[in-house]
Amino acid sequence: MSTNKLKIVNDPVYGLISIDNELIFDIIEHPLFQRQRRIKQLGLSYLVHPGAMHTRFQHALGATHLMQDALSVLGRKGFYISEEDRESAMIAILLHDLGHGPFSHTLENSFFHDVSHERISEEFMKIIDRDHNGKLAGGIKVFNDTHPQRLLHKLVSSQLDMDRLDYLNRDSFFTGVSDGVIGSARIIQMLSCHDDEPVIEAKGIYSIEKFLIARRLMYWQVYLHKTVVAAEEMLKLIMLRAKELMMKGGKELFASPALKFFLSNNITENELHTEYDGITPLQHFAELDDSDIVSAIKVWSHCDDYVLSQLCKRLIDRKLFKIEVSGNEIPDSRVQEIKDEMLRRNVVPAEYVDWFVIKGALYNKAYSRNHNDAIKVIQKDGTINEVAAASDMSNVFALSKTVKKSFVCYIQLPQTL
Amino acid sequence: MSTNKLKIVNDPVYGLISIDNELIFDIIEHPLFQRQRRIKQLGLSYLVHPGAMHTRFQHALGATHLMQDALSVLGRKGFYISEEDRESAMIAILLHDLGHGPFSHTLENSFFHDVSHERISEEFMKIIDRDHNGKLAGGIKVFNDTHPQRLLHKLVSSQLDMDRLDYLNRDSFFTGVSDGVIGSARIIQMLSCHDDEPVIEAKGIYSIEKFLIARRLMYWQVYLHKTVVAAEEMLKLIMLRAKELMMKGGKELFASPALKFFLSNNITENELHTEYDGITPLQHFAELDDSDIVSAIKVWSHCDDYVLSQLCKRLIDRKLFKIEVSGNEIPDSRVQEIKDEMLRRNVVPAEYVDWFVIKGALYNKAYSRNHNDAIKVIQKDGTINEVAAASDMSNVFALSKTVKKSFVCYIQLPQTL
Amino acid sequence: MSTNKLKIVNDPVYGLISIDNELIFDIIEHPLFQRQRRIKQLGLSYLVHPGAMHTRFQHALGATHLMQDALSVLGRKGFYISEEDRESAMIAILLHDLGHGPFSHTLENSFFHDVSHERISEEFMKIIDRDHNGKLAGGIKVFNDTHPQRLLHKLVSSQLDMDRLDYLNRDSFFTGVSDGVIGSARIIQMLSCHDDEPVIEAKGIYSIEKFLIARRLMYWQVYLHKTVVAAEEMLKLIMLRAKELMMKGGKELFASPALKFFLSNNITENELHTEYDGITPLQHFAELDDSDIVSAIKVWSHCDDYVLSQLCKRLIDRKLFKIEVSGNEIPDSRVQEIKDEMLRRNVVPAEYVDWFVIKGALYNKAYSRNHNDAIKVIQKDGTINEVAAASDMSNVFALSKTVKKSFVCYIQLPQTL
Amino acid sequence: MSTNKLKIVNDPVYGLISIDNELIFDIIEHPLFQRQRRIKQLGLSYLVHPGAMHTRFQHALGATHLMQDALSVLGRKGFYISEEDRESAMIAILLHDLGHGPFSHTLENSFFHDVSHERISEEFMKIIDRDHNGKLAGGIKVFNDTHPQRLLHKLVSSQLDMDRLDYLNRDSFFTGVSDGVIGSARIIQMLSCHDDEPVIEAKGIYSIEKFLIARRLMYWQVYLHKTVVAAEEMLKLIMLRAKELMMKGGKELFASPALKFFLSNNITENELHTEYDGITPLQHFAELDDSDIVSAIKVWSHCDDYVLSQLCKRLIDRKLFKIEVSGNEIPDSRVQEIKDEMLRRNVVPAEYVDWFVIKGALYNKAYSRNHNDAIKVIQKDGTINEVAAASDMSNVFALSKTVKKSFVCYIQLPQTL
Repeated sequence: MSTNKLKIVNDPVYGLISIDNELIFDIIEHPLFQRQRRIKQLGLSYLVHPGAMHTRFQHALGATHLMQDALSVLGRKGFYISEEDRESAMIAILLHDLGHGPFSHTLENSFFHDVSHERISEEFMKIIDRDHNGKLAGGIKVFNDTHPQRLLHKLVSSQLDMDRLDYLNRDSFFTGVSDGVIGSARIIQMLSCHDDEPVIEAKGIYSIEKFLIARRLMYWQVYLHKTVVAAEEMLKLIMLRAKELMMKGGKELFASPALKFFLSNNITENELHTEYDGITPLQHFAELDDSDIVSAIKVWSHCDDYVLSQLCKRLIDRKLFKIEVSGNEIPDSRVQEIKDEMLRRNVVPAEYVDWFVIKGALYNKAYSRNHNDAIKVIQKDGTINEVAAASDMSNVFALSKTVKKSFVCYIQLPQTL
Repeated sequence: MSTNKLKIVNDPVYGLISIDNELIFDIIEHPLFQRQRRIKQLGLSYLVHPGAMHTRFQHALGATHLMQDALSVLGRKGFYISEEDRESAMIAILLHDLGHGPFSHTLENSFFHDVSHERISEEFMKIIDRDHNGKLAGGIKVFNDTHPQRLLHKLVSSQLDMDRLDYLNRDSFFTGVSDGVIGSARIIQMLSCHDDEPVIEAKGIYSIEKFLIARRLMYWQVYLHKTVVAAEEMLKLIMLRAKELMMKGGKELFASPALKFFLSNNITENELHTEYDGITPLQHFAELDDSDIVSAIKVWSHCDDYVLSQLCKRLIDRKLFKIEVSGNEIPDSRVQEIKDEMLRRNVVPAEYVDWFVIKGALYNKAYSRNHNDAIKVIQKDGTINEVAAASDMSNVFALSKTVKKSFVCYIQLPQTL
Repeated sequence: MSTNKLKIVNDPVYGLISIDNELIFDIIEHPLFQRQRRIKQLGLSYLVHPGAMHTRFQHALGATHLMQDALSVLGRKGFYISEEDRESAMIAILLHDLGHGPFSHTLENSFFHDVSHERISEEFMKIIDRDHNGKLAGGIKVFNDTHPQRLLHKLVSSQLDMDRLDYLNRDSFFTGVSDGVIGSARIIQMLSCHDDEPVIEAKGIYSIEKFLIARRLMYWQVYLHKTVVAAEEMLKLIMLRAKELMMKGGKELFASPALKFFLSNNITENELHTEYDGITPLQHFAELDDSDIVSAIKVWSHCDDYVLSQLCKRLIDRKLFKIEVSGNEIPDSRVQEIKDEMLRRNVVPAEYVDWFVIKGALYNKAYSRNHNDAIKVIQKDGTINEVAAASDMSNVFALSKTVKKSFVCYIQLPQTL
Repeated sequence: MSTNKLKIVNDPVYGLISIDNELIFDIIEHPLFQRQRRIKQLGLSYLVHPGAMHTRFQHALGATHLMQDALSVLGRKGFYISEEDRESAMIAILLHDLGHGPFSHTLENSFFHDVSHERISEEFMKIIDRDHNGKLAGGIKVFNDTHPQRLLHKLVSSQLDMDRLDYLNRDSFFTGVSDGVIGSARIIQMLSCHDDEPVIEAKGIYSIEKFLIARRLMYWQVYLHKTVVAAEEMLKLIMLRAKELMMKGGKELFASPALKFFLSNNITENELHTEYDGITPLQHFAELDDSDIVSAIKVWSHCDDYVLSQLCKRLIDRKLFKIEVSGNEIPDSRVQEIKDEMLRRNVVPAEYVDWFVIKGALYNKAYSRNHNDAIKVIQKDGTINEVAAASDMSNVFALSKTVKKSFVCYIQLPQTL
């Protein structure tokens, strides 16, 4: 019965969230959606911000809640969205991150070869769609931008989408980094529509400035926090080494069957549905979550491979790599210097030194002025401006610059270098 | 250097938490403490309250933060606590839950035979103590109530301890159940001391009423939430069945080595330090966390044992047992009726029916007036009363009654009975 | 144009409040409604809780916001409320406190003789109604309980009305007394209707317990805070003395014309519309707000009447009366003892001693089980119980007891007695 | 006794504030400090943001609380501040705004001729100092920048002082404009000291960016909100007209004695202590607060001067001037056009038209890079940079530009022009 289906979810971020659409509620009950309860939104960030244990499941519900609000504001302002299209938009935002695997972005390239999480999201949506007799068709169209009302896709995926509004709110809430808090309620109240695209009313421009600066700050303080970056590099190395040992070395490592499958095979996009012993890579991927990785790493920390056991033991015990970050390119000579010192002090055997010093780069761009995706402001007289141009100052313009930083991280030496 | 050690932790509940004691900071870095990052505070509650992903690690830091505040309030009120004793109290509260294993209370009896988590906490403390050359001795005394200043133990473990203040705050924060929010800051400001015991100043009595009622509500709305109870019963059955299959059936189930050890052995208190193939049960336990259980359950959901695979599949996909809760004892006839219906409809094979219908009881007692542990109020003139007696109403007295509820939970039938 | 009228108000308590009804918006713009911006919700409470500067204006908007939510929850649960009745309910809650004068309850009897603020509210509503061509007729019916759908009146005025939900939230928010925080969002989600009365769904019963206890605590910690009671007694004495001086003594005191009118006349209910020099008492009352009283008191603190100047000076400078509160009746002998001491020490001239010692009583009843107004709970099977009976313990029953305290307050003596 | 003096204040913004210094506590009890309870922090802002009723009293306590925190952070980082200097810094911040009169900045020039509120603050401090036997001497030195430890003055008055940290937090809290929320706790944790000046540790730079952008946004959304600007212009005109009527016209207007004094006299800086009928202007000013103005305006709205009654009636009933704001200079021709239209439609008598059309300008500069006052960042290696130079992008640089807007505001015409 339908009243039975009126559900309220306690969300620490927004308070009580009502889900009043029966199909949405049924989708939430699908195992592929429930799986997101076991995938943390921010991967290893909890090693720096202990509160960051929140999951993709919570983010998906939160973004859907904001979508509900945004569509109702647009409706009250006279932009007609049919009940069916509303449902499609909600499905699309609800499922937009469905394809994320264990530790989300960090391991995005560790399981498949060149398959984006968006691609997996769409595949998973199709499975749920099949289980609901095609009722998700509209939602899939909104997701992959083939729906005639482009506004809806833009609310799911653009520089001012419900995804970003929710994740900035949510990630700052759970990390406790108050600098990331944005005025999402006000931004949504200021939403309007022009040429089938979301735009912001002029008096909302300051909230957009705040939103962009918050995004910039969250990148440096959370997403690209240097200690988290070091931990993520370690995790990527662990997966690389485990795969190398299993595929090249023929070594048998402890792993759940799904994890073992990916450690033993290189799967590309066109093999997603190929059966291996009766199971497709997609089915294996649906079984994976953070727990498989953590559970395996603990066991591997006792294995007899020097590289793997060292990396695992240190990650589990939070003896993370030391990291140096610089606004300038870190020269190869500095990397060599670190390696030399490691060898001089016998920190690691010479043959493995490359596993313990990693160089990389971080990019932070708060806002792209790219025409297709720029955030647009509508004046009272209907004029449309791009937000950097509409501001009374050049600070938004400044935010469209990409800031690049270079880093090198390496196993901690007994004494600092 | 010491400034390097001045650490600030972002805590979503209290804001920034400063840790200014170097030993405390070192203990936090110990692997046995870091392990708590991988054990959720509220076990399976996240299946009902999606935000309840917070960990024992966060709770330990939060309770320590409150201890710091409580000791400084007491100090300002003239109750002298030496720097050494302060450190001891902080160690004790920091480590009070160290002995919890995967899914905390739910599986407290699934790994060891008759060993409380407090006992394990003390064993783990001794390990850390050894690693720090005996510096935790005072903390251990506070924890096991052998410290001469009994006040300190009471702040760690009593009806008005920092443990409860933190977990009510924290659990209500992360579940989003605002009814559990308590005025911990005010309660701490009202703390005083009498006969080496914490007491509350008279004008704080209303905050205590609120605290007790909040505790009562959190039990029904969170800790004993009926859906969570059903999930926990399933988890306990899963562990029981897995152990039965491995020990009696000689079946080989997927499990991490540590989990496998406990599924294959019944360990009692005096075997904690016995070596099995060179590893003690305590060492195995230190390797275990939530991830081992979750990862195994997913694999077991595909195994060929009817009972285990059914229970696992349903728990993972959140197709939880239906539960009936009643203020009166549920009669055996009702249990039999459910079983008959299950058999009539062929929901489960007759031989396994007992695995799919479970009867049990829930107890909720917000406050115990037991003399040793009763909360005491100090009037301006120095008179001491027990809080229920000090209140201007009988509502606190009412809260000292134990409320018992009976439940039966069972696999969902195709149509409700 | 109507979009122009879509207004959003920033409310610190609930965030952004949308007002989407044009008539409601017009009423808000009426001078009689704007007047509420100048009347503090909690009178003199700001002398104890400095944040308590919030006004009747904010409370009226907040309660209207909650009414909007409550009606929409009831609508989704199938209880039909026509658009017209919805507007009437919103008008009634918006204007329910319109008749409050300066310092609200404290001076409720200082201006008129035996006229309740509800009576004035209704008179003021009729004025606004006239200015809007009778469009408030339905709202007035809801307010004075002559509307056929009694549910609506109960949402405006009963033990579980939007008034209480808002004021508990708001007063605890602005005083910073967190013990008063209630789960209004959850209570509203649990609202249902039975026999044209609001009822609470069974699973909301704990939130009601919390709501009642919060109310009890707010009475002792805020509304009946002993220091506030002392200040209020002083304010009442000031008005009494000023009136006595002007009416009996023929003394000319500084006062705004409206205040002067009430200090010089005893107005009863049937003179509300009588013209005095062309102005009715109601018109004079509409001109009054907190500022007239504060501004006059400052001037009076320099006047040559001993009693008035002393009381005024002390209230303005926050040298408040000392107060003794007791659960037992304070005997007259204690009052006499205080007076004797005052005289012995020449604190005040003998003839005025009665102006500086006041005895009184405080009553706190969190909940009335009176049949007409009791809070009712609806079980899943449709059974209706009164909430104290429905609870699994007797604590709610306890809350229905009236707690009486006796107090005596008096001018501070150079040294405490 | 000292324990009696340990006071806790409920502050909605920071929770419980402890005041543990007896002198501070005594100063708070002084009538000149209590007077601040009757002066709203944000003047007329409550006409747009109904929550903005908070007072100078609350702000003073809040800023003192932050000072306490800042000094303790600096102390823990090894910067020694003696107990006496700590008290001086707390006195200075506690009393920094003491000299504000009714409606703060708006009427800053309406009472005295060319006397800043800082000057009055210092005069008032001296009075309190005299009442406490010279104990405020150190505090006055910190305030007027003659204290040898300049760091302390900078914490009271600079671009990164406790004043700004508190008012941004507090004003955004009470207005509900979440865009103004800053991470004051984090900024304070990042405080350090260099060359006797406060500096920010490098990793706090993003919080400074956020702080500056929040300040910019608060200016446009709150302090310079166009509707508030219109109301403030009206209030200034009212005071001007009243003074003109009383001084030039010899008209007797209702006013409290203190207000009447300022409406009848032009007082300059060197007359502050001159006695007029035995009372100094400073003493009169100490009697004034918001209530005198509001109470008078209500009476004046019925007076027989066209200009004064119109302005007063409209301000009280919130029929505010319409305002046009532009990034470009508004040409005089536009002002003339408005006046012509007003005359053509007989909105106001021709002779008074200048009282109903006002042109002005608004300035917003989030940050000044002026060397003496620039915010400085200290790198790990001790290098000092100005914050705009230290940032990895030019957005902070952009914030140092002054944005000027031009406005014209005027009485609403029956139909919009």
